[in-house]
Amino acid sequence: MGEAMERYFIKPGEKVRLKDWSPDPPKDFEGDKESTRAAVAELNRKLEVLQERLYAERKHKVLVILQGMDTSGKDGVIRSVFEGVNPQGVKVANFKVPTQEELDHDYLWRVHKVVPGKGEIVIFNRSHYEDVLVVRVHNLVPPEVWKKRYEQINQFERLLHETGTTILKFFLFISREEQKQRLLERLADPAKHWKFNPGDLKERALWEEYEKAYEDVLSRTSTEYAPWILVPADKKWYRDWVISRVLVETLEGLEIQLPPPLADAETYRRQLLEEDAPESR
Amino acid sequence: MGEAMERYFIKPGEKVRLKDWSPDPPKDFEGDKESTRAAVAELNRKLEVLQERLYAERKHKVLVILQGMDTSGKDGVIRSVFEGVNPQGVKVANFKVPTQEELDHDYLWRVHKVVPGKGEIVIFNRSHYEDVLVVRVHNLVPPEVWKKRYEQINQFERLLHETGTTILKFFLFISREEQKQRLLERLADPAKHWKFNPGDLKERALWEEYEKAYEDVLSRTSTEYAPWILVPADKKWYRDWVISRVLVETLEGLEIQLPPPLADAETYRRQLLEEDAPESR
Repeated sequence: MGEAMERYFIKPGEKVRLKDWSPDPPKDFEGDKESTRAAVAELNRKLEVLQERLYAERKHKVLVILQGMDTSGKDGVIRSVFEGVNPQGVKVANFKVPTQEELDHDYLWRVHKVVPGKGEIVIFNRSHYEDVLVVRVHNLVPPEVWKKRYEQINQFERLLHETGTTILKFFLFISREEQKQRLLERLADPAKHWKFNPGDLKERALWEEYEKAYEDVLSRTSTEYAPWILVPADKKWYRDWVISRVLVETLEGLEIQLPPPLADAETYRRQLLEEDAPESR
Repeated sequence: MGEAMERYFIKPGEKVRLKDWSPDPPKDFEGDKESTRAAVAELNRKLEVLQERLYAERKHKVLVILQGMDTSGKDGVIRSVFEGVNPQGVKVANFKVPTQEELDHDYLWRVHKVVPGKGEIVIFNRSHYEDVLVVRVHNLVPPEVWKKRYEQINQFERLLHETGTTILKFFLFISREEQKQRLLERLADPAKHWKFNPGDLKERALWEEYEKAYEDVLSRTSTEYAPWILVPADKKWYRDWVISRVLVETLEGLEIQLPPPLADAETYRRQLLEEDAPESR
């Protein structure tokens, strides 16, 4: 991973306090909105090629987890970072309020069903981390239950890693003020009202509790094999650029190889070319 | 549907003979490769907007079925027609050789599981039609079994239609000669060998049998509520244009409405703006 991105990777065991981090691009960042958007478009094209090779090789599995407060841009990332990629190679899994059947199983049951297979990229829009976030903040299970989950999640992700899955977990970090602006924007435009959920205001009132819950997630579940990347997300263009860079650099690091050429291509070629000869029909 | 596209819709009850159809653009078609590609890009942008509205409205369900001989361009259509669309709103379902569990159920069981929900577009890359195509050509079940399936499929699709699903079925029509050229291209370039499946040559040898099976599919399962569109597919750019046009015109015809504006937007707005006042915390 290039040095520019390295700084956003949470080191295993690192104690994260969000007030030490900025939701804005660093002061020494040289790009502006326009040049960075152009860079993202360039990275999109690379991602498209890498995804096709990944699909062809059918060896690696790639899991991308997106987490963040409401309005932090999870949907936006899917649109802008993955839009150019063949819809056949990328699946999006949304984790909504669990159904009764899902609640009757352990919380990783529904998650395990949709992890990527060989050659696939799966994006989790929210994930099993909600089981130590919303579940904790709203006291949906007692502390002795959710506290065990950090280690359970680490072991689950270790299993995925040891069986060929590359895992990238992005925390989209926005400020409370930026969330307010984004909610106001949705309310100001009737055509955007459908994106506004009155429940978001109730969750917003629990901002500090969510920050604390996220700090524990980042501190306890960033591992060598499934790192958290803390993405400054107040500026959408910078957020998209960080995620695109990390994705492209990670996929490049997999050194994906196309399957070897066919040994008998010439035989097949001759078969096709000769098929109109009378004896072949 | 505009007149230009109307001609490719198979009328219910119409007896289709493929030799009466052309895999090429019509002689009176005024576009060329370049101008048509530009038109497709324009349609892509419309599709993107329509898909977002569809997702917001959460009322209609859209099922797109792609069928055609090997190399006819099913994957290519998914890439070029749907690439610009938010991956979150479009799912691709691939139907491979059935698993044992799938074989232990009726042939529509695995299909029903993945039909679109409200606000979704699902693309079937191959479909339940393989159960009257490859299954018939290879005698995998006796004729008295597959012959019943046309009506079963019509009734299944009627159910989907009556419960809110818009169904479009595209048959990508290529000539035998064009398939030969495409297979030769794959064999000529070692980087494309992975796309070549030696089994394709065995299927190609059964070309007439497949044509006959497709003629029966088109003649027996094109209905008002789930029409087949016969797409001339020897020219990729024309194929993409026809499919994009039909999709965009069909979605426009749904007259998708965004959900009504919130009645209490102003209340929420004030709540957000006043939250920093001491009494609100």
